This record gives sequence, C-alpha cells and structure tokens, in this order.
Amino acid sequence: MRASTALMTDRYELTMLDAALRDGTAGRNCVFELFARRLSGGRRFGVVAGTGRLLSLLRDFRFGDDELRFLRDERVVSPAAVRHLEDYRFSGTITGYREGELYFPGSPVLTVEGSFADAVILETLALSVMNHDSAVATAASRMSIAAGDRPLAEMGSRRAAEHSAVAAARAAFIAGFGATSNLEAGRLWGIPTMGTAAHAWTLLHDTEEGAFRSQIDALGTGTTLLVDTYDIARGVELAVRVAGTGLGGVRIDSGDLPIVAADVRSQLDALGATGTRITVTSDLDEYAIAALAASPVDAYGVGTSVVTGSGYPTAGMVYKLVARQGADGGWVAVSKKAEGKNSQGGRKSAFRRLVRGVAREELVEIADGFEISADPGDIADSRPLQVTLVDHGAIDAAHEGPQGVRTARAHHLRVREELPVRALALSKSDPAIPTVFSDAGRR
Amino acid sequence: MRASTALMTDRYELTMLDAALRDGTAGRNCVFELFARRLSGGRRFGVVAGTGRLLSLLRDFRFGDDELRFLRDERVVSPAAVRHLEDYRFSGTITGYREGELYFPGSPVLTVEGSFADAVILETLALSVMNHDSAVATAASRMSIAAGDRPLAEMGSRRAAEHSAVAAARAAFIAGFGATSNLEAGRLWGIPTMGTAAHAWTLLHDTEEGAFRSQIDALGTGTTLLVDTYDIARGVELAVRVAGTGLGGVRIDSGDLPIVAADVRSQLDALGATGTRITVTSDLDEYAIAALAASPVDAYGVGTSVVTGSGYPTAGMVYKLVARQGADGGWVAVSKKAEGKNSQGGRKSAFRRLVRGVAREELVEIADGFEISADPGDIADSRPLQVTLVDHGAIDAAHEGPQGVRTARAHHLRVREELPVRALALSKSDPAIPTVFSDAGRR
Repeated sequence: MRASTALMTDRYELTMLDAALRDGTAGRNCVFELFARRLSGGRRFGVVAGTGRLLSLLRDFRFGDDELRFLRDERVVSPAAVRHLEDYRFSGTITGYREGELYFPGSPVLTVEGSFADAVILETLALSVMNHDSAVATAASRMSIAAGDRPLAEMGSRRAAEHSAVAAARAAFIAGFGATSNLEAGRLWGIPTMGTAAHAWTLLHDTEEGAFRSQIDALGTGTTLLVDTYDIARGVELAVRVAGTGLGGVRIDSGDLPIVAADVRSQLDALGATGTRITVTSDLDEYAIAALAASPVDAYGVGTSVVTGSGYPTAGMVYKLVARQGADGGWVAVSKKAEGKNSQGGRKSAFRRLVRGVAREELVEIADGFEISADPGDIADSRPLQVTLVDHGAIDAAHEGPQGVRTARAHHLRVREELPVRALALSKSDPAIPTVFSDAGRR
Repeated sequence: MRASTALMTDRYELTMLDAALRDGTAGRNCVFELFARRLSGGRRFGVVAGTGRLLSLLRDFRFGDDELRFLRDERVVSPAAVRHLEDYRFSGTITGYREGELYFPGSPVLTVEGSFADAVILETLALSVMNHDSAVATAASRMSIAAGDRPLAEMGSRRAAEHSAVAAARAAFIAGFGATSNLEAGRLWGIPTMGTAAHAWTLLHDTEEGAFRSQIDALGTGTTLLVDTYDIARGVELAVRVAGTGLGGVRIDSGDLPIVAADVRSQLDALGATGTRITVTSDLDEYAIAALAASPVDAYGVGTSVVTGSGYPTAGMVYKLVARQGADGGWVAVSKKAEGKNSQGGRKSAFRRLVRGVAREELVEIADGFEISADPGDIADSRPLQVTLVDHGAIDAAHEGPQGVRTARAHHLRVREELPVRALALSKSDPAIPTVFSDAGRR
C-alpha cells in the first residue's frame, strides 16, 4: 500500500469540516475553483502541470490508522469527525484544463464539485501540486522556446527537495525539455535520462588523461567529456587526442559561455573534430539560453533556474469556494469581497477563442444556474478547455502515469503553437491574451 | 517497507560508478564535502537544516527490485554495476554540523568519507535535502528574529510541492517558528499544528453571523475568527457581538496591515474586547514582519515567503571531492581549477571562534594528511562544529525523528545568541563573520 496523502492538508480544513458536520452545512453541494489571479513575474502565459500527479495522489487520499490516531490523540477534530474521516473517499466531480494546457488570469484550471465535506479538504494537496508543477512548467516552456531546436536537459535535482526534484523533471519534460538527469523521474514517469561524468571523475584519477581514457573505455567515443576541470583548451586538446575526432561531445560547466563556446568550437574544428557536439551547463536560464542563440552550442543543461521556476517558485494559484447550495437547495454564487482580493463567483466554462488558428482571448462564461450546457459544438473558432478528470469519484486513469505525461507534453507543444507571436518574447509584459468573463449567452 | 530513495540520484553518479568499477578506482578512499561557496541573497548567516531527514532517507537508500530492473532495462549501467548495486549500503563515515547550526561560506557542513563507489552516489540526495531545508531555515530564522517574542506560524504548504511542504514546516520550526498549519508535519515530526477557518467557511453559510456562531459552537469563544471576508469593521463588530468580549482572536488576511491592525485594535478595545488577539497573515515576509513591529499585532502567519526561502529557494550548496587516495595509497588533496569556481581541497575541521561569547570567525583547518586530531579540548574560546552522524555505516539515530527536531531547534536558538548584533539586521551585506582557512597548527 502506498503512503497516505490525507494529512498533506492544512489543519483548518479539518476544523471547518468538523464544525460543518455539527451545524448541518457539511452536506451542502459546493463548487470550488482553482485558479491564478495573475501570472507571476510578468509572464505572458502559464502552463498547467501537475494534474496527472494530483489524480494519483487523490487515490491515496485516505485516512489510515496512523492518520486517524494522530487526529484523535492531538484532538485536531472531534470523535464524530474522526469517524467521518475513517470512510472518506472523494466522491465528487473534478473538471479541469488538460495537463500541458496554457492558462491565464482567471482561467478555471480545476473545478471541484461535491459536498462541502468532500471538497474542502482537498485544498492544500491540490494547490501544493498545481502551484509547484505549474511554476516549473511555465519557466521550462520559456526555456524551451528560447532553445529552439537545440536539445534541452533538466539537471536541477540537487537544487530542489528530493520529491520536488522528481516532479520538476516531469513538469519540465511536459513543457518541452527532452531529458532529465533524475533517475527516479525516468523510472516513474518514463522520461529519458542523461548524464556522463562530474568533475569528481577527473579529480578521482591521477591524471585528466586517465579519467578521459577510462570514461571512453566504459562508454565509448560517443560519450561527452567534461573538459573544464583544469584548463579548457588543454582539456579539449586532450579529449580529442584520447578519443579521436569521432568524440561525441564535450561539456563546459564554467566561464563566459559565448566566448568559451566559440573558442572551443574553433579548437575542435581545427583538430578535425567537426562533428563533436558542445553542451553547456553553467547557471543557465531562459535569458542565458536566448543570449547563446548565435553561439556554436549544440545542447543545454539547465539546473537551478528551471526547478525553482526561474525566480517564481510558486504559481500563486488559489482554491476558492465560488458557488454553493443555500438552505432552500438553490445555487448561490459566492466570492470574497475584501479589499484587493476580489474573485468571480459562480461556476464557469472556459474556451479559447481563436482567429485563423491564433489565440485571441480566454473566454470564461459564468453560469447563471448550476446546470449549463457546455456543448463545444456550437462555438465557432472556440476550443473548449475543460475535460472531466474525476466523475463522481471515478478517476480517469488516462491522465496518470507515463502515458499521461506523454499526452500532456504533446498537448502543450500543440497548443503553444496557437499563441500570438508576442507571447514568445521573454520580457515582462501583460498576458498574451485577455481573459474575458461573460454571462452565458454571449459568443 | 518504506520507499527506496536510491534513484533520487543524477544518472552521472551511476555512470561514474560503473566506469570506476571497470578501471579499479571504485575502491579508492575519498573525502567528499558538502558546503556553500557563498550565502544567497546577501544573508549574514545560513542555517543548517535537513540533516535528520537526510539520515532517515539514507536508511532507505537501497536498490530494490524495481530500481534494479529500471537500471538494467534502460541500460543505465552495465550488468556488473547492477550486481554491485544489489548489495549497496553506505558503509562510510559522515561528519557534519549539527542540525540548526549556523554556517558561512566554506563551512564544511557535511563531510562524507568512504570508497568512491560508496560516496559518489549520495551527491544528489544529500544536496536535495540540505539545499532545500537550509534555504527555508535560513529565511525562517530571519523572520523569527524580526518577530521577536510574538508567535510565528508557518502556513505555506499550498505554495510548496506536497512533500516539500512537510519538510519546510520542519525547517521553519527548527529555525524558530512555533507552529505549522501542516498536519503531516505534526504527525511525522511532532510540530504543533494550528488553524481554524478559511474564507470558504464564511461563504458556505447564509450569513457571516451564522458562520461565526457555528464556529464558536464548535471551537469555543477562545477560537480565532476570520473577519475580512466582507467588511472588516463590520466583521469585527459582529465577531464580538457573537462571541462576547472573551473572544480569543481575530485574523486579518488582506489590506494595508499597519493601518488595519491599528483600526481593529481600537475597535476591539472600544468594544471591550481588550484581550482579543490580532493575527495577521497576508503575504508576510521578514521585511513586512519588521515593519509591523510597532503595530498592535499579536501573532503572525507566514506562507509563501518562508516555504520558498524568501526569494532564495535553494541554498546553493555543492558536493565536491576534496581528497582521495592515490595509486600509492597516499592521500591527495584535490580541487577543481576552472575559472570562478575554485574550492579548497583537503579534509577539514571547523571551529567557531568566540570572544566573550560572541562569534568572531569560522575557523576551517585543512589537514595536511588524512589523520588529524581535532581534539577540541586544547582550543581556547573555540567551539568545535562537527559531530559524527554516520560511523562506518552506523547511523546515529539521535538526530532522527521528532527528538532530532527538538534538539536542532534548541541548538539553533542557542547558537543564534552567539552572533554579533550586526548579524541580526535584515539588509544585504557580507557574512556576519569571516571564514578563515588555515593549515593545522595555527590557533
């Protein structure tokens, strides 16, 4: 049995559940919405990631003996609430954007429908997963755009907590990276893994030549040799001398990369190693990658900046009650009114409006009542954005596992093509397309 | 059985292991060091965190059937290397700073000694844990200093990936926070948990009064009511009307906090609720907390900024080979010489030199040979910083679990008192004390 995820939850969710069981509101049907009020860092689009992970974690959102004992012993909630949680299993419905889809301010990324008791306690887990994974995917997509056709590998595991590292490798792959250094991401999610040697390999040996020779004996001349442990020019000369002109590649992890890359390319060509590829891996982010576009670099490895969202490690999404049943059973749209944090109440349907294949606006329709037909067939030039992820408690397994990752990556690369050209610039600006809220009926 | 951590590893570590098994260097004894070249963000000190977690994760660093099958099927390493990994268990020695200790540039936070094969493959896991947890603890300690005697709670789980959230709650507690909203952190690490209600609680009910009344019925008048869902002044008036002047507290999650806190305090006092406490929770960081020092605030809740390291989500520590045995069995200090990334080779002993109880410098002695006596008894006014965490494969359990967390927190609060006054300022500057490298003999 896998570990329970049920206590990856803020205490107040269970406190509210407890009080709602007492006062009879626990059974009120509710609509919670997960969305971002704005895009972090003047980004022009966000990338939805984490959906497939969240669905698998939802399967393990059960209160086992250890979790129940903690809640009882610490008196987090009443005995009646503990009994309620013994049998808890989410039985509501979740619709949401496909993983890999783009999002904009106010996009209803996830809509969770169910009783208050069912839905309120998913807040923290849903936000933890979606905020982290979407932040990484959003940064990764910008890097992938900057890299163009050159291969891009994620190698930032050491700069992220151990489980986050695996999730980050997954999010980066969905957003266009081609490989990861993280082996667990390879095992769990089917992502290609890469890597040959660190500086420790050279330092372990009595000479750099000995290190290179041994690596080539083990991995063949197609391997990539790390040439900057001592002196780069001497390292390159030695690498070609040891491996021959068929050497697969050299990696550079330090120095002023545009200058160093040009020097190394000249040296390799002069030595006859014209097919030897140059990989650079030193503190890259989307701006550094863009600055190397004209340099003779063949591949990039990105660490810290991708796994930390390149300055914005969380997507800032929130999980808000937007509609509920009242005492009379009728539906009421609700939203907080406090200063500066207004949000749109009501259940929403979302469409991307396209003109000649180019995205023009994010259309978010607010339903008057609970039942709205969101039949996409009658919407010209609009693409419906929401799919059913959980149907009355039944999780759609198509979004999970390695298959879900492949589908999400393909979807991301496809919908990215719909963006207007201005969306591809790296500078800070407004969202690439506006979000337009409307009552049902406009189109 | 707990999940294996063995593939939370960059592929190149296993590739190097594989090649080292072939060329005979796998058995060379090595010293790897985990340290930070600089303090992120102009911080004046860093806080070591993650040590206790790392030791527990090291217990699970075993290659099971699933991990071995992946390595074999994907041909990550040769069959001989897969056979070697079947029996892998770290049998070396790890010394390091106590969890909760302060660190400075070049402090040998962890020293890992063992064969190359034993030690090289711990790089990613060790860095993932220490970089994340230390980044959070360093930010948290600054917030704890800024908060002074006022209680401080961590509530950022939703802005960190689901496992990182638990680790962040732990790191913040070690660095001086008093509680967390994260229930799993309470269960796993014994950290006090807190929380009462979100805006969804008020919105669920037909009226704000109904929500407040129900919460008080469930949790008593000592509870904290969230008063900013609609209008704060009306919320405060209502809260006291419903709960009476014995109301425990009100929470404010929006607005211009210095102004709002003063207004709410005046209103509470005028209503006779002079003992009702004010908790603020809106986008706080160490600077906002410091700016509220003169405001009538009784407690702080901090979310995003603490779990993301307040702008610096990773501590930037590295794991470097610093000494190894040569072909003749003698020890050789090694270090990379490439531009801009020099580090000090050699095995190190570290001491904090104090004058009248105030820290003056971080003394890092570099041993000439491998065997150096680091008997602290003969060092006047110096405090030895390293302890044995793993002794020839035997993990010291005293650092693990809730007991380890309590010990680390007490240690942190004690050693923070040794800092010079200038170390407590929040502005960017140099490290509070210099790191002095010396050959053994000076003192």
